Amino acid sequence: MAQEVAIKRVQELIGDRLSLAQSVRDQHGHDEFHHHQASPDAVAFALSTEEVVAIVNICRETGTPLIPYGTGTSVEGHIQAIHGGISLDVSGMDRVLAVNPEDFDCTVQPGVRRKQLNEYIRDTGLFFPVDPGADASLGGMTATRASGTNAVRYGTMKDSVLSVQVVLPDGRVITTASRAKKSAAGLDLTRLFVGSEGILGVITEITLRLYGIPEAISAAVVSFPSVDEAVSSVVTAIQSGIPIARVELLDEVLMAAVNAYSGFDYPAEPTLFMEFNGTIKSVEEQIEMMQAIVAEHGGGDFNWASDEQERNRLWQARHDSAYAAKALREGCELWGTDVCVPLSRLTECMRQTRQDLESCSLPAPMLGHVGDGNFHLIFVLDMSNEAEIKEAEGYNERMIERALAMDGTCTGEHGIGLGKKDFLVDELGETVDVMRQLKLTLDPTNFMNPGKMLDIAPVRSVAAE
Amino acid sequence: MAQEVAIKRVQELIGDRLSLAQSVRDQHGHDEFHHHQASPDAVAFALSTEEVVAIVNICRETGTPLIPYGTGTSVEGHIQAIHGGISLDVSGMDRVLAVNPEDFDCTVQPGVRRKQLNEYIRDTGLFFPVDPGADASLGGMTATRASGTNAVRYGTMKDSVLSVQVVLPDGRVITTASRAKKSAAGLDLTRLFVGSEGILGVITEITLRLYGIPEAISAAVVSFPSVDEAVSSVVTAIQSGIPIARVELLDEVLMAAVNAYSGFDYPAEPTLFMEFNGTIKSVEEQIEMMQAIVAEHGGGDFNWASDEQERNRLWQARHDSAYAAKALREGCELWGTDVCVPLSRLTECMRQTRQDLESCSLPAPMLGHVGDGNFHLIFVLDMSNEAEIKEAEGYNERMIERALAMDGTCTGEHGIGLGKKDFLVDELGETVDVMRQLKLTLDPTNFMNPGKMLDIAPVRSVAAE
Repeated sequence: MAQEVAIKRVQELIGDRLSLAQSVRDQHGHDEFHHHQASPDAVAFALSTEEVVAIVNICRETGTPLIPYGTGTSVEGHIQAIHGGISLDVSGMDRVLAVNPEDFDCTVQPGVRRKQLNEYIRDTGLFFPVDPGADASLGGMTATRASGTNAVRYGTMKDSVLSVQVVLPDGRVITTASRAKKSAAGLDLTRLFVGSEGILGVITEITLRLYGIPEAISAAVVSFPSVDEAVSSVVTAIQSGIPIARVELLDEVLMAAVNAYSGFDYPAEPTLFMEFNGTIKSVEEQIEMMQAIVAEHGGGDFNWASDEQERNRLWQARHDSAYAAKALREGCELWGTDVCVPLSRLTECMRQTRQDLESCSLPAPMLGHVGDGNFHLIFVLDMSNEAEIKEAEGYNERMIERALAMDGTCTGEHGIGLGKKDFLVDELGETVDVMRQLKLTLDPTNFMNPGKMLDIAPVRSVAAE
Repeated sequence: MAQEVAIKRVQELIGDRLSLAQSVRDQHGHDEFHHHQASPDAVAFALSTEEVVAIVNICRETGTPLIPYGTGTSVEGHIQAIHGGISLDVSGMDRVLAVNPEDFDCTVQPGVRRKQLNEYIRDTGLFFPVDPGADASLGGMTATRASGTNAVRYGTMKDSVLSVQVVLPDGRVITTASRAKKSAAGLDLTRLFVGSEGILGVITEITLRLYGIPEAISAAVVSFPSVDEAVSSVVTAIQSGIPIARVELLDEVLMAAVNAYSGFDYPAEPTLFMEFNGTIKSVEEQIEMMQAIVAEHGGGDFNWASDEQERNRLWQARHDSAYAAKALREGCELWGTDVCVPLSRLTECMRQTRQDLESCSLPAPMLGHVGDGNFHLIFVLDMSNEAEIKEAEGYNERMIERALAMDGTCTGEHGIGLGKKDFLVDELGETVDVMRQLKLTLDPTNFMNPGKMLDIAPVRSVAAE
C-alpha cells in the first residue's frame, strides 16, 4: 500500500524519529475537547525545514494524508487523522531563531510554546501577548488564528504575525513577507496562512510582533449580581474607550469550579477578571473610570492581585478554567462552544443563551472574552452517552444560529476543524467555495490535513490508494 | 471585435453612464504619479453591485480587460489601461450603508471617500483613521492596502477592514466575513482582497473598524539640526513605548516647499509633525516624555497647533506635501519611492539614501512615516526627459535594494501596480508564483486589471481577441 511505502521512506529519512508505537499514535490522535480519537498510522518527529520538505514530498507522492501537529491543544478536531496517514510533529523544532528588541519582533520555529517564548525574551522588556488557555505551540496558534485574554487590547494571531515560512504541499518553501512593520507588497499571503489549519502547508518559521511590558500592570477580580450586569459594564467600558488589557467573564458555575480547582475563595457569582496596562498614571485613570462603571452596574469591590506572583496565579487560574470545568465530572470530556458577536448584541446573545440553558442537564459553565464579544459554554459530558452528545449538539447549534442571526461568527478563536464545517457554510455561504478553490490550487490531491475546515470529496489520491 | 461587443453590451445596460468621451477616458488613464498615460477604451460608471456583476460578466465573456477605478489617486500605475478595455468607475457608489457606533464599525460602498466618511460619522464621536495624502475612495484604499499618518497608532487598511463584499471575476458575489470583531472562521479572504489591486475582483462593500475620537488631541511641529537626529528621536520614542498617534518627518527641502505651498513659515529644517491622542492626563504624559527625547536629540521647541482648526491646517499641509513638491517645478510629474524597513535600520537606511542623493540633479524631498520605518523620496521630474527618468529609476532601484538588504519591503503603502512588479519578485521570490497561482484560480483568463502586480503572460483571452 502507498501509505506503507510512505512510512518506510520517512523511516529511512529520520530513523527512529518515525514512531509506530500505539501510545504515540494515540496521543497524536486526539485534542483537548470532545472530538473522537482518530490516531494516525505513524508519527514523524521533524527537526528541520528540510525534513519537513522531504516528508511533505513523500506524502504527496504516495497520496498519504499529512497532519501537522504542535502540542495537540487545539479543540475542534484539527489534528485527528480521520483518513489515517502521518502526523508530522514539529514540537522538536523549538528554537527561538532571532529576537530583535529594537524592532519589537522575533522569529521562532513552530514548536516554540508561548510560555517558552515569554521566558526567553523576558530580559528584553518585551512580551508576546497572545495567550490561549493551553501553553500551545506558536505554529499551532498561527495555524488556528488563536487568540486569548489579551486580544481585546493586543489583537489575535492575525495581528501578531508579521511573516511565515511555509512548506507548501508541492514542496516549495516560501516566506510570505519581510520584517517591515507594514507593507503593500502583493497579495497578503501571511494572513492566508494564519488560520489555514494545516490544509495549505506546514508552517516552519514565524516572525511575530512583540510588545513592551507596560510600566504598570494591575489586575483585579470583581463580582456582579448577574451576568447581564457584568457584560453590560464591559460593553460600556469598551464603548467609553477604556483601553482595558484583559476583561474576562466567568459565570457563577465556572467560578465555583475555579475556586475548587485553583484554591481560590471568590464568591461563586458572575465575575470579571480584569487587567489594566499602561503608565502608572494611565492605569490609575483607567481603574478610576472602570470602578465608576462597575459601581453603576451593581458590581462589588475590586479584589486586587497584590503583586506579580498573585497576578500570575490569577491568570493561570483563568487559563486553567477549562480544566477546572473538566474536574466537575470525572471521566468526562469538554465540548466548548465559541461564538463571537458585535458588542452591541453581546448582552442579548448571552441572555438568550442562558435562558436556553435553563433546561440543560449537563454542567455548562460560561466563559467570555467579553471585550471582543466572544464567549464560550463548556459542556462537560460523557462521550459514551449519545443523549448527552445530542444535547450538547443542540445547544451548540442554537447558539451558533443565534450568533449568525446577530451578524456574528460561529467561531471567535477555536477554528473550524472537524467540528464546524457545516456552520462555516451557514456563515459564509459561497465564500467557502472560494476557500475550497484556493485549497485545491495549492493542494490539488488534498493530502494536507484532509477533511478539516472544508469538505472536499472525493479525497482524490487517498481514495486512489 | 470582442471589445466593441463588450462596450455595446455595457451601453445597453447602463446607457449614457458608459462614456466614450476622450476627456473622460484620459482622466481614467493616469494616476497621481509618474506612470505613463494609458486610457481605457470606455469608462463605465456603475451604481450598484448588480451592475458591477453584469459588467464583470460581459468583460469576462468578451475577453475585455476591466479596471476598477475609485478616485484615481493611486500612484503606482494601478488604473492605467495598458491593455485597453473598460475602466469601471465606482465613484457613484458613494453611500454609507450602515454605521454601528456601539460596535465601532460601519459599512460603506467603495466610492465613499475618507473625508466624506469622517464627516458623516462626526456626530457619533467616532472617526476612521486611515489617511493617505489624497482624499481617496475607501474601495481604492482597500484595494491598495493604503495607510497614512495615523498608521503608527491605528494600523493600515489591513487592520481596519472587517469584511468586504466582492464581485469575483466569474460573477459570484461573496462577503468575506461577519461583523464580529474577531473570527477564526476559515481562510482569511478579507485580507486576501485587502491589497489585491483589482486583480482578484471588484470590491463593492467594505465594513470598516472605527475608533473613538480621543478626549485630548495635541499636535506640534518641531525642527531638528539633522534628519539623523529627527529620526533617532522617533526611534527612541517608539522603542520607549510612547503611543504616539502620528509622527511624520519632512526634510529641509520639503519643509521649504510646504511653507511656500501652504503658507507656513516654519524653519526650512528637518522637521517632525507629531500628534498625541488620549485622555488629557495621558497626552500630557506622552508630551513630557517626547519633549525629553527631542531635547536629547537637539530638537527645538514644540510649536503647538493651538486649536482644532490650526491642527487640521497642519495635517492638511502634511497631506498636501506631495502637491507642494510638485509645485517646485512647473509642468513636471512626481515619482515617489516607498520603502519600509525595520525600525532599527531606519536611521542607517535614510542616511545612506541621503548620501546617495548628494549628486542628484532632481528635486527630491524626503518624507517619512518614521514611526513605522516607512519613507519616501518624491522626485519632481520632466517625464519627457529620458535622462531624468533614468536618474529617478536609478535612485529608486538603489533605495529598494538597500531596503531589501535590511529586511525591509519595496513598498510600505503604495503597492505594486505597474511600477514594482520586478521588485516584488526581488523581495519575495517564489512567493510571487503562489500569488500568480491564486490570481489565475480566481481569474483564469486574466481580464481583471491585467498586467498589474503580477506579470502573467500571455494575457490569454485578450490575446485571443
